[in-house]
Amino acid sequence: MADSPTIVMGHGGGGAMSAELVEHLFLPAFQDPAAATELGDAVGDAAVVALGGARVAFTTDSFVVRPLFFPSGCIGDLAVNGTVNDLAMVGATPCYLATAFILEEGTELAELGRVAEALGAAARVAGVRLVTGDTKVVDAGHGDRVYVNTTGLGLVPDGVDISPGRARPKDVVLVSGEIGAHGIAVLSCREGLEFSTEVRSDTAPLNGLVAAMLDTGADIHTLRDPTRGGLAATLNEIARGARLGIAVTERAVPVAPAVADACSILGLDPFAIANEGRLVAVVPAADADRVLAVMRAHPDGRDAAAIGTVTEDNAGMVVARTGLGGTRVIDLPIGSELPRIC
Amino acid sequence: MADSPTIVMGHGGGGAMSAELVEHLFLPAFQDPAAATELGDAVGDAAVVALGGARVAFTTDSFVVRPLFFPSGCIGDLAVNGTVNDLAMVGATPCYLATAFILEEGTELAELGRVAEALGAAARVAGVRLVTGDTKVVDAGHGDRVYVNTTGLGLVPDGVDISPGRARPKDVVLVSGEIGAHGIAVLSCREGLEFSTEVRSDTAPLNGLVAAMLDTGADIHTLRDPTRGGLAATLNEIARGARLGIAVTERAVPVAPAVADACSILGLDPFAIANEGRLVAVVPAADADRVLAVMRAHPDGRDAAAIGTVTEDNAGMVVARTGLGGTRVIDLPIGSELPRIC
Repeated sequence: MADSPTIVMGHGGGGAMSAELVEHLFLPAFQDPAAATELGDAVGDAAVVALGGARVAFTTDSFVVRPLFFPSGCIGDLAVNGTVNDLAMVGATPCYLATAFILEEGTELAELGRVAEALGAAARVAGVRLVTGDTKVVDAGHGDRVYVNTTGLGLVPDGVDISPGRARPKDVVLVSGEIGAHGIAVLSCREGLEFSTEVRSDTAPLNGLVAAMLDTGADIHTLRDPTRGGLAATLNEIARGARLGIAVTERAVPVAPAVADACSILGLDPFAIANEGRLVAVVPAADADRVLAVMRAHPDGRDAAAIGTVTEDNAGMVVARTGLGGTRVIDLPIGSELPRIC
Repeated sequence: MADSPTIVMGHGGGGAMSAELVEHLFLPAFQDPAAATELGDAVGDAAVVALGGARVAFTTDSFVVRPLFFPSGCIGDLAVNGTVNDLAMVGATPCYLATAFILEEGTELAELGRVAEALGAAARVAGVRLVTGDTKVVDAGHGDRVYVNTTGLGLVPDGVDISPGRARPKDVVLVSGEIGAHGIAVLSCREGLEFSTEVRSDTAPLNGLVAAMLDTGADIHTLRDPTRGGLAATLNEIARGARLGIAVTERAVPVAPAVADACSILGLDPFAIANEGRLVAVVPAADADRVLAVMRAHPDGRDAAAIGTVTEDNAGMVVARTGLGGTRVIDLPIGSELPRIC
């Protein structure tokens, strides 16, 4: 008799396996046809729901990053920034956060205190208020010191309508900065790897950058933050959501030399590495230069670049023009090259 | 040198140790004076926040119950009911849920499927929609198959103002049914204990019962669901929140014979045992009979009873008149007699 199928690390990778879990296990179990639209987007950012006449953005994420502290961040600020960014990706102004801890028996209070301080500081930087919370404790050996869930609430301004489905042929695809730093920073710290230059996480709240982009008046069609599964997963999700193709110029995608070096040494593709302070924007060609200029003028978008265009052909696919003049298909990652990076 | 202080199981018990963690670690770290009001209530139900002109109830809870399945419930419906009830306790109509799973590598997909089905079914019963979610996977030995966080959003109707601080001297304290069943059901299942009668969890959504109570037009001052820390913790929190005393008639508190028997055998106090489908209401004396009658007419309040009154003396304390005619102080439980019951 075959073993029963079980959860493997890849189910948490934000790629094809995560999507399969949502489509074939959660959605049939939840039996809510409307949920299919919203939850069907496996690594989706925020849901936008109607509440008392307002359009409210609502998003949840649990954070299980290992180690808890990594170069230039920790699970506390990561949790706030991750949730703030999910709200920002539907154009919402982040307002309130709920935070829920699952603590492992034996965790040092001093360490928990440092996490909580980072969480509080990140909330103040992002301008969101921590208004409710929960704490559970599990026996030693059933956790990993600190897991934290953050759920965010934001308000979507009138007239703002941002979603993967709004991408149109000839739209320009922008990325807000160098990719891959977060995943490599966590990995190198976890495995004790040393590179010539320390790679620091890019964790940052992106609501300020998004507000500046919206202030241009440009009709921003799509925003996504390329977290688990990296740029590869995000571009594929946009292509599938819009039922269009995306053509990327590989050389146009900014990658820090230290990240590129680390990826070659480790045999990793920077396109599949998680980011926690980067966004991808899809904008009409006529607005692209204006939006890009505003992004580059913002501290969180200094290295922003136009990396490709939306195409009518190759619907649902992402095709990159390589440095050598060839093309390669960028697939949706299947599982996870780097587990527990957020 | 003394060891550094660490997290112990009692910090998750919903009693004095949980409150201490919030007051002395989280609040100073978060540095948000307004949060102090809302988070200061350690096992607090929902925060009520202003969002786009609406009064929105917002609450989060992680569920780490062991075992995952217990008599008449599982972690899936427990998570939905727990969050729905926290919304109902501020008089809100529950609308939307977010759900976030932390799965342990090696968990059987079939078991996860049963949890997800219970979660979906409970959401349909309570009339809330699951609109967004997240799934993380942790390595074997860093979880316990399935942990789930649920965050709820609800709308507080105009004119509804329910909080512990509104209790007034001479108000009547009502409880909606027999107490202690949930904690004893989980414990007996976990430890393989058998009693003459199987104790089944009371897990249930209370939004229907609360709607019926509000429909009476009575000015309901306070609602709380006595989960972790049981009736003892809830009554103490109300007494402290209102800076008034509560006098309870011990014999008036409904306890099922099987629960009472189990508690005597195990040396547990039914007042400190968790409930997941019960509420405590504080109502003006003039409204008490009317509210109690409506509760008793509702399937989730059949065994409702008036158990005490709010007093000007003994401010901040709960004093019970015992069956023998004496009195005893009912303290806020310190840690947790029964870990991981929710």
